[in-house]
Amino acid sequence: MATFKAPTRDIKFVINEVLDFPSHYAALPCGEDATPDMIDAILTECAKFCEEVLSPLNQVGDQQGCTFDNGKVTTPEGFKEAYDQWIAGGWQGLSHPAEYGGQGLPVSLGLLKSELVGTANWAWGMYPGLSLGAMNTLYVHGTDEQKMRYLPKLTSAEWTGTMCLTEAHCGSDLGQMRTRAVPNEDGSYALTGTKIFISSGEHDLTYNIVHIVLARTPNAPEGTKGISLFIVPKFHIDEDGEMGDFNNVSCGSIEHKMGIHGNATAVINFDGSKGYMLGAENDGLACMFTFMNTARVGTAIQGVAASELAYQNSVPYAMDRYSMRSLSGHKNPDKPGDAIIHHPDVRRMLLTQKAFAEGGRAMLYDAARQADIMMYGNSEEDRANADNLLGFVTPILKAFLTETGIESANYGMQVYGGHGYIGEHGMEQIVRDARISTLYEGTTGIQAMDLLGRKVILDGLKLYRSFSKRLYSYGFSILFKRGRSKYGRKLLAHTFRWNRLCIGLLIRASRNRDAVGAGSYDFLMISGYITMAFFWARMADTALEKLKQNPEDRAFYEAKLETAEFFFERLLPRAIGHAEAMRGSVGSMMDMPLDHFNVR
Amino acid sequence: MATFKAPTRDIKFVINEVLDFPSHYAALPCGEDATPDMIDAILTECAKFCEEVLSPLNQVGDQQGCTFDNGKVTTPEGFKEAYDQWIAGGWQGLSHPAEYGGQGLPVSLGLLKSELVGTANWAWGMYPGLSLGAMNTLYVHGTDEQKMRYLPKLTSAEWTGTMCLTEAHCGSDLGQMRTRAVPNEDGSYALTGTKIFISSGEHDLTYNIVHIVLARTPNAPEGTKGISLFIVPKFHIDEDGEMGDFNNVSCGSIEHKMGIHGNATAVINFDGSKGYMLGAENDGLACMFTFMNTARVGTAIQGVAASELAYQNSVPYAMDRYSMRSLSGHKNPDKPGDAIIHHPDVRRMLLTQKAFAEGGRAMLYDAARQADIMMYGNSEEDRANADNLLGFVTPILKAFLTETGIESANYGMQVYGGHGYIGEHGMEQIVRDARISTLYEGTTGIQAMDLLGRKVILDGLKLYRSFSKRLYSYGFSILFKRGRSKYGRKLLAHTFRWNRLCIGLLIRASRNRDAVGAGSYDFLMISGYITMAFFWARMADTALEKLKQNPEDRAFYEAKLETAEFFFERLLPRAIGHAEAMRGSVGSMMDMPLDHFNVR
Repeated sequence: MATFKAPTRDIKFVINEVLDFPSHYAALPCGEDATPDMIDAILTECAKFCEEVLSPLNQVGDQQGCTFDNGKVTTPEGFKEAYDQWIAGGWQGLSHPAEYGGQGLPVSLGLLKSELVGTANWAWGMYPGLSLGAMNTLYVHGTDEQKMRYLPKLTSAEWTGTMCLTEAHCGSDLGQMRTRAVPNEDGSYALTGTKIFISSGEHDLTYNIVHIVLARTPNAPEGTKGISLFIVPKFHIDEDGEMGDFNNVSCGSIEHKMGIHGNATAVINFDGSKGYMLGAENDGLACMFTFMNTARVGTAIQGVAASELAYQNSVPYAMDRYSMRSLSGHKNPDKPGDAIIHHPDVRRMLLTQKAFAEGGRAMLYDAARQADIMMYGNSEEDRANADNLLGFVTPILKAFLTETGIESANYGMQVYGGHGYIGEHGMEQIVRDARISTLYEGTTGIQAMDLLGRKVILDGLKLYRSFSKRLYSYGFSILFKRGRSKYGRKLLAHTFRWNRLCIGLLIRASRNRDAVGAGSYDFLMISGYITMAFFWARMADTALEKLKQNPEDRAFYEAKLETAEFFFERLLPRAIGHAEAMRGSVGSMMDMPLDHFNVR
Repeated sequence: MATFKAPTRDIKFVINEVLDFPSHYAALPCGEDATPDMIDAILTECAKFCEEVLSPLNQVGDQQGCTFDNGKVTTPEGFKEAYDQWIAGGWQGLSHPAEYGGQGLPVSLGLLKSELVGTANWAWGMYPGLSLGAMNTLYVHGTDEQKMRYLPKLTSAEWTGTMCLTEAHCGSDLGQMRTRAVPNEDGSYALTGTKIFISSGEHDLTYNIVHIVLARTPNAPEGTKGISLFIVPKFHIDEDGEMGDFNNVSCGSIEHKMGIHGNATAVINFDGSKGYMLGAENDGLACMFTFMNTARVGTAIQGVAASELAYQNSVPYAMDRYSMRSLSGHKNPDKPGDAIIHHPDVRRMLLTQKAFAEGGRAMLYDAARQADIMMYGNSEEDRANADNLLGFVTPILKAFLTETGIESANYGMQVYGGHGYIGEHGMEQIVRDARISTLYEGTTGIQAMDLLGRKVILDGLKLYRSFSKRLYSYGFSILFKRGRSKYGRKLLAHTFRWNRLCIGLLIRASRNRDAVGAGSYDFLMISGYITMAFFWARMADTALEKLKQNPEDRAFYEAKLETAEFFFERLLPRAIGHAEAMRGSVGSMMDMPLDHFNVR
């Protein structure tokens, strides 16, 4: 069984040493309580809960899965008890406003919690995780009355929330949605339709579930311009906040999936269910993006979680499994073979996992820092800049970190050899659980088009330029600093090549619009490697600095430098392969007529 | 559910048109019966069996899996009936000697059968597949008496066979094996020990199972030099071929695996079980390689099978799923969105699957052609050359085709979006089933070391040179031919770069032996892309030729050319990324001290 140990030292390195959260928090209106001591206390308590309560339920959850019987969903053994502890600990509202019962800490501290929970037990973490999306959407778009009615119980975790978007015939193309919302006389709406793939859609953890649902009002314009957003509780809530009758929100079935068995992926039927409009009519898609961005960054966490958990469980196996002899001389002469960690290819896999986990973590926490500023920044300009920057990196985080997370998870199996394929070790579960991450909340292909099509090209390269300027200026700043110059050089060279690719693509796209789609996946992966290089350079920079100040922590900083070296020497060069593939002709992808696909 | 349609046109293209099997067979002593008509008949019948009998059992097999109860294993519903049809059809002995009841056809025709069976239902196919390994080992190393006793029933498929190598503490490092074989007075041996991960190790398809077992005799030298090979039937066979008493070969349990649920992966206990030595004492590992090579090429088939099945099932979905609009203008204006096959990134995934399936198929059948010559070639020199060439490409086939097969399978899920994660469509099963292929029969890392360490470096580059000479001379031969020159140019450029890398690596390795392991994975992947480029160039060459001769088959040949174009433009460039990664320092992989892996 895979076990989990919270990487607290590494998280503290990223937030306190690399990204300087203490001064960041000091400048935030909601940051005064987020002192290093407070963060330490949260980290310690959360780590304890995740290591002792959630992690032991991870394999149980996979093996038992959720069961469906006549509309009722039962979660795996222990899930409800863990959830009750979650409520008792007040974890749900950690970074939500005090006026609804939260602790009012910065949103970036919520990431810390989500990372630990998600790494320990992703399937369980999706119950509170989906609630967060519903809470954020309500918080941003709800009326005061709606907030007062729903947010306190969601913040306390006594209820959970979901997001109901997908229908059987439409996943990402929400314009095709058919669920209808017909106005009632009292100002509410009667919703009728079937939603699928609703994560945490039905369960036995809480009595009520607040669904946030996309639907069309009568005579709404076609396509995405005619979608509105609704609050549809499973049980009615009256004005006093008391729970009332069943609202005809029923679970039709749950899916049999490759992984995340502990989370119920439900078919939810609305049958004249009473709903309340959230935000303006026909403005649902825009409102939805509040949730989507939360969800996409949330899914990016899953990538880091997979890299982290796979790494943690690969290392001890690689140290304890003795097989074959090292080519460079016996390492364990008293054993029948050398520990496989001495074999270069095993190290390649371990260091890849480590570089992706830690590099991805830095990318995530930097994004969370921007999210703090977007929410609570001191000026309109600061907030807008942070929002833009976050919008730009979101598809990179979502797609690149999940793709690399799946790679790390697969290396976990690979390190175990045939044992990795057997259920009991838990390594194949990491792969199965992680495998959803490049599919939901917009596939890698969708993210790639969002990045290249919308955020780069439609934006006229404005955001792209300001993002790459950040890399250039950092690259130049370390170019002549001892021990950093090689990283500066590589970062600059790759960023420069990336810029040229981008210009080349613009020229191509002016002749053939399919050039955008044809290059989007490779462009996204290149963007991911370069963004991660930026953070690895910064981590190396910090580690070199701290090595002088804290010699007692030498091993930690040296390991950081060694991993940075591996990233720059062995992983960053992959960007060149993607660039070469991206240069391939668009015709080679688009010219084959449809009927040729089947002539075999 | 994933369905299977035998790619007969494509197989015929490869064997008849690209590799010219008709004249190859005409030159073989056993090839006279292998006329194009005969091959056609086999292909048609085998396709029918695979499409109608095996393919419908593929999902059932996954869902039911094998069940274990008190030593007995029950295979999924329908598996036994299908196996009875297999026996009745005489399929097992297709390419085995007539003197033991086979049809005596060339071994390459066996590949054709294995490919179709494996693509339709890999888990089922492993029952007859493992038997093939046992049969080949017996055929090459058995005494006449042993062959007469065991081969006829294995050839008729009335019995199955297995290969028992792995023990709990030793997978690939067979020198650590502990199962003991103590001589009996009658010349036989009493075997005692426990083997794990025995595919098809126990089942209800046949009454008897012939295990080929690696074990140590008393006083055998330590390590791999002290291993001998034994025949250990589950039930004794007397001199008249009659089946006798139980031989104390029992199944302790079966594994719960990520995939291939329909195949029983058994723990097999030998408890004083009577065994008969196969080949010379302490020569077991060498004898075992007969099986290993069969098994490794057999596993390479699994890669092509995964690419093929994923492709076949991705295309119709991509044609029928309407989502989003194409950037280059509406393609299905009467639908709510365009079919996703019009989106470049979906095409990228489909064409990648297609290029890997068809390119891999050509690589496999060319290897099978060499296997024919190795077995039945007219001169000692021909046979030795073929054996060497096959030895060289085996790790490339095994590792590269399985890695790319898993990539194709994952693209299958990706094309389906969220639906790919749901069991009913069968796409996630392809991933789970294929995932074992880079683990068993030597992981990708083991294959990479076999290629670079043994077949390239220890061999002093002799085989490597003769292999790359083949690529050079072909590249030059098409360099000035209309329509082929671009492929010739790219093939030559990549081969030249590959050669330089290889020399660079030799220099590095002379200073640091870990350079071999550090570069082995990337070297293997580069070797795979270049080898596949060689075959895609040949297929394009043939397609251009045939386009003139058979204009009625225009669509087929054009599709072939379009896929070749995609491979050269978009997939071959990946080799450059691997080459760049391979240039990274060895120290970045090897210098991190062990304790630094855990400082977090």
